[in-house]
Amino acid sequence: MKLASLKDGSPDGRLHIVSRDLTRAIPAPGVATLQQLMEDWEALAPALIEDYGRLNDGALAEAIPFDPAEAMAPMPRAWQWLDGSAFDSHGDLMDTVLGIKKEKTGRPLMYQGVSDRFLGPKEIATFPSEGDDIDFEGEFGVITDRVPLGTAPDAAMRHIRLLVQINDWSLRRLAPIEMKTGFGWVQAKPPCSMAPVAVTPDELGGSWHDGRIDLNLVVHWNGKQFGAANGAAMSCGFHDLVAHAAYSRHLVAGTVIGSGTVSNKTYREVGSSCIAERRGIEIIDQGAPKTAFMRFGDTVRMEARLPDGQVLFGAIEQQIAKA
Amino acid sequence: MKLASLKDGSPDGRLHIVSRDLTRAIPAPGVATLQQLMEDWEALAPALIEDYGRLNDGALAEAIPFDPAEAMAPMPRAWQWLDGSAFDSHGDLMDTVLGIKKEKTGRPLMYQGVSDRFLGPKEIATFPSEGDDIDFEGEFGVITDRVPLGTAPDAAMRHIRLLVQINDWSLRRLAPIEMKTGFGWVQAKPPCSMAPVAVTPDELGGSWHDGRIDLNLVVHWNGKQFGAANGAAMSCGFHDLVAHAAYSRHLVAGTVIGSGTVSNKTYREVGSSCIAERRGIEIIDQGAPKTAFMRFGDTVRMEARLPDGQVLFGAIEQQIAKA
Repeated sequence: MKLASLKDGSPDGRLHIVSRDLTRAIPAPGVATLQQLMEDWEALAPALIEDYGRLNDGALAEAIPFDPAEAMAPMPRAWQWLDGSAFDSHGDLMDTVLGIKKEKTGRPLMYQGVSDRFLGPKEIATFPSEGDDIDFEGEFGVITDRVPLGTAPDAAMRHIRLLVQINDWSLRRLAPIEMKTGFGWVQAKPPCSMAPVAVTPDELGGSWHDGRIDLNLVVHWNGKQFGAANGAAMSCGFHDLVAHAAYSRHLVAGTVIGSGTVSNKTYREVGSSCIAERRGIEIIDQGAPKTAFMRFGDTVRMEARLPDGQVLFGAIEQQIAKA
Repeated sequence: MKLASLKDGSPDGRLHIVSRDLTRAIPAPGVATLQQLMEDWEALAPALIEDYGRLNDGALAEAIPFDPAEAMAPMPRAWQWLDGSAFDSHGDLMDTVLGIKKEKTGRPLMYQGVSDRFLGPKEIATFPSEGDDIDFEGEFGVITDRVPLGTAPDAAMRHIRLLVQINDWSLRRLAPIEMKTGFGWVQAKPPCSMAPVAVTPDELGGSWHDGRIDLNLVVHWNGKQFGAANGAAMSCGFHDLVAHAAYSRHLVAGTVIGSGTVSNKTYREVGSSCIAERRGIEIIDQGAPKTAFMRFGDTVRMEARLPDGQVLFGAIEQQIAKA
């Protein structure tokens, strides 16, 4: 099933079921918001899944054309956003950029970020200053229903109800200053963006395995391809991230958990999902970073396709501007 | 004005106005939840303040006795919880405990914590294991209305609508492990608790100045006084913390911002608001920590009084247990 939250003037939008080919949509019957669905997934989802089948079969005459420009983030706000950093090659390159060597502990890396607002897929992202070194970060993520404290990874897998595609905006000038405190990021992490639809894991077929999204995240910066790293390279699966997060807290229904920047060891061939990583490669290869960060007016586009070419989540297509 | 959210089976509770002496309460007319009030403070607060006056005058026959056991946290859940660490003597002692020396940058320290649930003042706090070194942290905090991105400290002061008293539960075994990553705390910071009422700054008279709460936070552990540090010693005021948080994000209405553990340089006289800090003093004075962390069944009590002896926020009185 594919789900979107369409603009209706409210902070949560109106939940819609979207056809697999992303052309048509219907309001989810009896479920106003995605948050409401996450709070009672087992009771509410089956009827929606049935309608999703009928929508795909073309049997619902009341369906409207699906316009991604009308979509908010599928989860326009969440009570909790926890972002991992599960791609080792990204971590290693970031250490290179920052001139540090982080100890490998085997524990998932995770921080809590701003979640009262996720930007929509085509929303202009605004920042205080170009001088803060504005960067995109292409990620995959999951949305869980309620996860009890102490849930083990195997059981956590069953709480992953939806998959999403995320752009985790980052201010690179501020990131190392905040990291040095040990307190994590506040100023360096403005609100993230999401691709227009959230999808149930079955939509991926064999491309969802081991709690990983085995698809390339194709990133374009100002119209030019920048990266196409594959999501299967996570050093731990999303179920491990969920279990890590639930060690000492119940995870509220609608918790969003991110993979961290999608990155592969073959970064010289596949490219990167953020600028900072390319700068790390330049430091290794050329002794110094060459690629500048974003300028106001720049655009970024992120999209993932199934092996059959079908676009899975729709595209993030954003421009940046001064706040 | 004093406000509480009383249990009504909903996640946000029912907003009540509480008399200054904490003996009587009435449902806030026309405003169901504190979140709703924060979203439209200027329009909604004046009528409530009028009723607060009548409640204090004994003119409202429909008032019910105020029972703190029926109180949830005044803000039972928030879209955002950002905790500072604004008491330098606490930071210095924590560095001693952790065996590190954090660079003094002059920038406020701040992390984003779990906010989908704040425990009520008498709610049992549960944790996975005593082995995680369970500790309380007595703090003050503020609740803001919507703060636009880029708001300066002076303007930020006007967005501080309510003051609260917080117990920021911490798992000390995990804290340094998570700090070392630079990502901040997830497992080390389970949900916080709040004293039963939130108060408008005018309730403090001269004890609210320079964006600081100039009151002693009296902490008892298992019935024995542990600390009575004063809140005026913050190295920056709450308005500075609000402005820091709003550098690259709009702060959603109902954002809760904490002071960090209340601590004074005279800690040998006034005591501490958390166990870790006392252990730091023991390391300095005796070469090793002596005081063990909490055991299941332990209790903690936190309360602040105005100079005239009046209890300001009510008391946090919690017991801890295995999750």
